[in-house]
Amino acid sequence: MKAEDLILISVDDHVIEPPDLFDGRLPSRFADRAPRIERGADGADFWKFGNAIVPNVALNAIAGRPKEEYGIEPQSLDEVRPGCFNIHERVKDMSAGGMLASMCFPSFPGFAARLFATEDEEFSMALVRAYNDWHIDEWCGSYPGRFIPMALPMIWDGARCAEEVRRVAAKGCHSLTFTENPAALGYPSFHSDFWDPLWTACSDTDTVLSIHLGSSGKMLIPAPDSPPDVMITLQPMNICSAAADLLWSRVLKKFPSLKIALSEGGTGWIPYFIERCDRTFEMHAGWTGQDFGGKLPSEVFREHFLTCFISDSTGVALRHEIGVDNICWECDYPHSDSMWPSAPEQLEGVFSRYSVPDDEIAKITHENAMRWYSFDPFASISRSSATVGALRASVAGHDVSVQARSRTTLSQEERVERFNSFFQKAPA
Amino acid sequence: MKAEDLILISVDDHVIEPPDLFDGRLPSRFADRAPRIERGADGADFWKFGNAIVPNVALNAIAGRPKEEYGIEPQSLDEVRPGCFNIHERVKDMSAGGMLASMCFPSFPGFAARLFATEDEEFSMALVRAYNDWHIDEWCGSYPGRFIPMALPMIWDGARCAEEVRRVAAKGCHSLTFTENPAALGYPSFHSDFWDPLWTACSDTDTVLSIHLGSSGKMLIPAPDSPPDVMITLQPMNICSAAADLLWSRVLKKFPSLKIALSEGGTGWIPYFIERCDRTFEMHAGWTGQDFGGKLPSEVFREHFLTCFISDSTGVALRHEIGVDNICWECDYPHSDSMWPSAPEQLEGVFSRYSVPDDEIAKITHENAMRWYSFDPFASISRSSATVGALRASVAGHDVSVQARSRTTLSQEERVERFNSFFQKAPA
Repeated sequence: MKAEDLILISVDDHVIEPPDLFDGRLPSRFADRAPRIERGADGADFWKFGNAIVPNVALNAIAGRPKEEYGIEPQSLDEVRPGCFNIHERVKDMSAGGMLASMCFPSFPGFAARLFATEDEEFSMALVRAYNDWHIDEWCGSYPGRFIPMALPMIWDGARCAEEVRRVAAKGCHSLTFTENPAALGYPSFHSDFWDPLWTACSDTDTVLSIHLGSSGKMLIPAPDSPPDVMITLQPMNICSAAADLLWSRVLKKFPSLKIALSEGGTGWIPYFIERCDRTFEMHAGWTGQDFGGKLPSEVFREHFLTCFISDSTGVALRHEIGVDNICWECDYPHSDSMWPSAPEQLEGVFSRYSVPDDEIAKITHENAMRWYSFDPFASISRSSATVGALRASVAGHDVSVQARSRTTLSQEERVERFNSFFQKAPA
Repeated sequence: MKAEDLILISVDDHVIEPPDLFDGRLPSRFADRAPRIERGADGADFWKFGNAIVPNVALNAIAGRPKEEYGIEPQSLDEVRPGCFNIHERVKDMSAGGMLASMCFPSFPGFAARLFATEDEEFSMALVRAYNDWHIDEWCGSYPGRFIPMALPMIWDGARCAEEVRRVAAKGCHSLTFTENPAALGYPSFHSDFWDPLWTACSDTDTVLSIHLGSSGKMLIPAPDSPPDVMITLQPMNICSAAADLLWSRVLKKFPSLKIALSEGGTGWIPYFIERCDRTFEMHAGWTGQDFGGKLPSEVFREHFLTCFISDSTGVALRHEIGVDNICWECDYPHSDSMWPSAPEQLEGVFSRYSVPDDEIAKITHENAMRWYSFDPFASISRSSATVGALRASVAGHDVSVQARSRTTLSQEERVERFNSFFQKAPA
């Protein structure tokens, strides 16, 4: 299939939140405590919330910028592509990249929105609701058919979180960003019953638990002086820890319709992983007491887990070992792993190399995303307008050229130094 | 190729140390401080060394025992197969399992022999030398051609360790068991120059750094109440952390002939991993400053790393993406992942399923092990005597039937409870 004929839905992109996100969305008694963007003496913007300072870091918004600008230094909104935070510019960038639809993870609140877990629960609830309403009604709602809506969790309480899942599901939102490891955040683990109301709500509303790499707040860094490349390499694969923790937990046995996406987790390691799970079951279930009602762990995996890839030819080659119904594509705009705006051509190359038939390409590029996330873009947009070629034609002239945007010019050593200090490295 | 015609060299097995290991091997002034085996009130044997107590745990020695006996409870030497600790019985078990030769990792000192890093350096050096002499001269030396000798490191000092590598290399030993992460043990990381004398010694003597999973002393356990199956599943793949840390380090750039084995790391995840490394290089080397002199990380990986599998059909299927010259087979006797004594038949099945040609089978089953570890069993044993069929015929009648051996009978719940408390679980 030619690149221009692909229909692309990405299940992992990122919004850099705009300054006016909370305007008019919080009860008046909370309005003056809302998070707000400020500009520091170094010229970089940061979110201020109570005593917390959350910088905009460069690796989070490097779409369309030269590789020399990659790194972790703080930056301001005027140093990034407007598509990072402006919905109208975002949709143009999506079209120019051939992307029909996108699911956008949050940035400054964290993937599990732990920033909003304050000591004042009413305030915390108001923040999560305000963010979710902004995200669903304004960000996604401005362009019907172009976004899979995703809600933030009320991460501090399984029952509260369940209520919010039901509330947003009534508005058409069937994706919840969640943590890969609640225990690492100081909450009860996946093995407690603390989250049962949430699993019930997700099951009742066909809401997918979308767990993004890094959402435990712990990055695997072997040594304090490991080069940045080590963490970058290891990021996706470490979500196998969450996959194992959930697969062997009581959760999937008690909630047989719960769905989980391993967001940005990659796919090429999955065949090894599920083979290892089956072998662990064969060798050890006799004493560990695991019982999947006659099923193998690999079968249970395919019933519950969606795997996701940005650029991962090994996973495309092994798609039948993973499960062709269990793979979605991701763009990761505007992060540094993204292939934007040339993802369609790169995908065409990989699909061609492994002779992937058109029906399987359709599943991987959009049909699986539609089914897993209960999302139908074609209710709003015709199929003929949804292809890479049609979308690009609709924004002909939109500038996607690579441009330097940083005001600061750091040396290579300074970039590495900032990366290391940002992640406060300690042995894993 | 039929199972009986295979020639099998395993690069990962384990010795359960016998009580008389140190007898006559320590200078007299140290003899009364040597580690010794004692029997506790519960009937289980343990090694006592200073204030340290190291139990013999059941998962370490379950060869030929029913799966119901798996678990982590302490046990005594008379509850395990004699082949675990008795060299003559071991060789019979090897032959009955069709295994020509074996490389045996240590048990009670730990994979990096950290137990021997005492405050008295002379004593520590004496312990490591005594162990290595016992291992090389007695354990391996009793049956020429049947063992790849492996030395313990002097883990507390790169220069001392280098001296020991040179000493044992002169005795024909070209494998050093080492840690996957010295930083996690409290020593300088792979990124310091602390270890440079060791890397020089390994390079000069063609000594392979064999880093076994778990050798950092840190197991990846997502939550304190994760079921045992989670850690068992994740063990091999987590060595990718060490592979990334070394691959991106200065070590391989400065020591181009250094060789590293990812012992018990599995193979099926390697194609994804090296593809991820190449992509990380493509996207990030511009600001991280990585430079492999024009090579890709995947090329550097194949120059330096040996990958190892016990039972991993994904890796056999993907052998060309890994590198057929970079794969060795492991038996893992007497641990719970071992296929002993029926490994040959299981290997025949996997090789047949993926139509692996004979020359590639020869590399994976023994030729790669011989080349990487500078080991030539055929100097002592004829090829016709070295096949699975010939070895099994040589010990016809040797009993390999599955037998219950535990004196204690724990419930399933008690086994899981002991596992959890043994690993002192904490969020990773």
